[in-house]
Amino acid sequence: MNNAVTLEMIRDAREALKGVAEVTPIVTSTRLGKNLYIKSENLQKTGSFKIRGAYNKIRNLTPEEASRGVIACSAGNHAQGVALSATRLGIKSVICMPEGAPILKVEATRGYGAEVVLVPGVYDDAAREAERLSKEEGYTFAHPFNDPYVIAGQGTIGLEILDQVPDVEQIIVPIGGGGLISGIAVAVKSMRPNVKVIGVQAATVPSMFISCRNGEITTVKDGPTIADGIHVLTPGELTFSLVQEYVDEIVTVSEDEIAAAIVALLEGRKTLAEGAGATTVAAYLFRKVDPTLKTVVVVSGGNVDITTLSRIITKGLQKTGRIVRITTKLADKAGSLAQLLACVAESGANILNIEHEREDAKTSVNTCVVTMTLETRDEAHIREIRKELTERGYHLFE
Amino acid sequence: MNNAVTLEMIRDAREALKGVAEVTPIVTSTRLGKNLYIKSENLQKTGSFKIRGAYNKIRNLTPEEASRGVIACSAGNHAQGVALSATRLGIKSVICMPEGAPILKVEATRGYGAEVVLVPGVYDDAAREAERLSKEEGYTFAHPFNDPYVIAGQGTIGLEILDQVPDVEQIIVPIGGGGLISGIAVAVKSMRPNVKVIGVQAATVPSMFISCRNGEITTVKDGPTIADGIHVLTPGELTFSLVQEYVDEIVTVSEDEIAAAIVALLEGRKTLAEGAGATTVAAYLFRKVDPTLKTVVVVSGGNVDITTLSRIITKGLQKTGRIVRITTKLADKAGSLAQLLACVAESGANILNIEHEREDAKTSVNTCVVTMTLETRDEAHIREIRKELTERGYHLFE
Repeated sequence: MNNAVTLEMIRDAREALKGVAEVTPIVTSTRLGKNLYIKSENLQKTGSFKIRGAYNKIRNLTPEEASRGVIACSAGNHAQGVALSATRLGIKSVICMPEGAPILKVEATRGYGAEVVLVPGVYDDAAREAERLSKEEGYTFAHPFNDPYVIAGQGTIGLEILDQVPDVEQIIVPIGGGGLISGIAVAVKSMRPNVKVIGVQAATVPSMFISCRNGEITTVKDGPTIADGIHVLTPGELTFSLVQEYVDEIVTVSEDEIAAAIVALLEGRKTLAEGAGATTVAAYLFRKVDPTLKTVVVVSGGNVDITTLSRIITKGLQKTGRIVRITTKLADKAGSLAQLLACVAESGANILNIEHEREDAKTSVNTCVVTMTLETRDEAHIREIRKELTERGYHLFE
Repeated sequence: MNNAVTLEMIRDAREALKGVAEVTPIVTSTRLGKNLYIKSENLQKTGSFKIRGAYNKIRNLTPEEASRGVIACSAGNHAQGVALSATRLGIKSVICMPEGAPILKVEATRGYGAEVVLVPGVYDDAAREAERLSKEEGYTFAHPFNDPYVIAGQGTIGLEILDQVPDVEQIIVPIGGGGLISGIAVAVKSMRPNVKVIGVQAATVPSMFISCRNGEITTVKDGPTIADGIHVLTPGELTFSLVQEYVDEIVTVSEDEIAAAIVALLEGRKTLAEGAGATTVAAYLFRKVDPTLKTVVVVSGGNVDITTLSRIITKGLQKTGRIVRITTKLADKAGSLAQLLACVAESGANILNIEHEREDAKTSVNTCVVTMTLETRDEAHIREIRKELTERGYHLFE
């Protein structure tokens, strides 16, 4: 049994976090699911749960460590959690970020009182610079997940869930490095061993999933994901050990499913989740977990880079058949476009956008190519429309 | 004094609405403003406040009226409010909608149990059809705002605000037809006459604003607005009278300001408001009202048509200098694009998109046109970038 993180440490963290972190609300949405309870860490200070672990880590520094300050490497939520926590405790913080980090996150981190060092290159370059500065200046390195105090801080969410939904049957938690689920699992399994704790990873970066299957820490190859908050290629040693011991199951969700969950939360509950946070809702909506159990999903954060939100929404709408792009060929003569549009209108679809091109490798001289973006009801509606257009003689490109 | 709507009627409505409508939360956001309290009617059942008035109207039908059913004309929130209320009361409802209404709203209204009649043409055509059916079939017409019971139902929000924020100094409310603000103003001024009640309209459709200035009901000419929930060209007689008597002031906000407020609510509070709902936050953020007073803003709904949300976000980011499009001319030779991008990178802006075109009326044979979409910090940052590029000899198009 791994005793590095105990229920007592988590209870202690909970006391310390009073007045620092919010006890975030649990909300429901009949449109999303009867048994679904959403633990809204997207409404947490700094927009994610990270402040819980960061604050608990920093408040446990020795006076000497505290006097020298802390350093972290993050382009995201951990940066803001460390910055605000350090400022609250009167401690200096330095955050290394890769140069291309979203400007809003850089500004927010500075706003919380940290010194931001923008490092040329990618995340790994920023991490190396943080390590160098840590050694050179004596800053304590604040690890984003593989640290008992960080894990104990995140575990306070588990205690809150048991208070807020006493008859919960399963809890779904995103996994990146594994700090959040380790803390929650220790808290929940110590108090209520029959409550299931299930982890979710992005199918494109399933590091903890694969590591558990292999029975040893495994680095997965890099893949793209909109869930940047859980984009971690190698689990931590401590978190891997705790997950093996306390977590019942790990499931994965696709990028489309994550995008569809973000849309579902916006439409159904008017709330904004980031990709990592929405993975748990995706797991519920797309039946990766038993939907008949009373389920708390942890929506871990809401810091979506808003300039990319529209692309995510489009992906989410496509996944559920709510929009579709259809391309076809038309004779380049008066009336043929009007005829096509009349046919689409009859089908009950709304036209959102039309691109109409004469010059295209696919077309001969007397034809043109039309691509329509349509608002549709669902997949069945799209099949109907395609069938109708095909029967009327339109050739549809894939 | 207009006695058509009384405090007693509003208190009576509040009793009746228990278990039907939610007492929506009031939330704060330090990022949006210290004195700002958000009455979250976007989290109301059906996604807007409309269920309050609709339910209160329908429950007050005579048994004979109830047996024949109700009819309404709406492509939006009123439709859903009437549908759900009628279903809850076991009464038949028919909703006329213009044919091009967003599919999601049509489906939602059907989902709440209404019979939806899609009418070819625009809103006015649907309204005429509703009138015809009302006469022909004996349905009671449920007016969206100009009705004492509807107004009394919306007024329950005023009572809740006084309970939830007892020391409120001003309340900001969107105005379309005027039903929402009439109800809130009657409730608030009856109980706490010193609390200011201020209305907000879209500057493009300022019907109540102009009517009050003129001292008589005035129809304004149609203008475009993303706040479709308050897109009303003529105030009601009853609402006009109540607004004149009880409302302290009406202000207007621009389309850009509304879009920026939607973005601010998404980023700062992770919550989705529709255009009409965000007008009140826009009025606060852009200083149309006194920001030093303890202010409750009513965010009246969250039913944004999600397929148009990305356009709204882009508009909102532009308004606050968070993204900008810059177009310039380049010599069409190797290295000139790389040079430009290096210069932009130095300025601290992130490049979101590049369009690079050779063929353009604006360019000669040996040059090409580049349009960059940049992520920037604010207006000052944009001015810096423009200055730097100009000094380095780039000609920027407006």
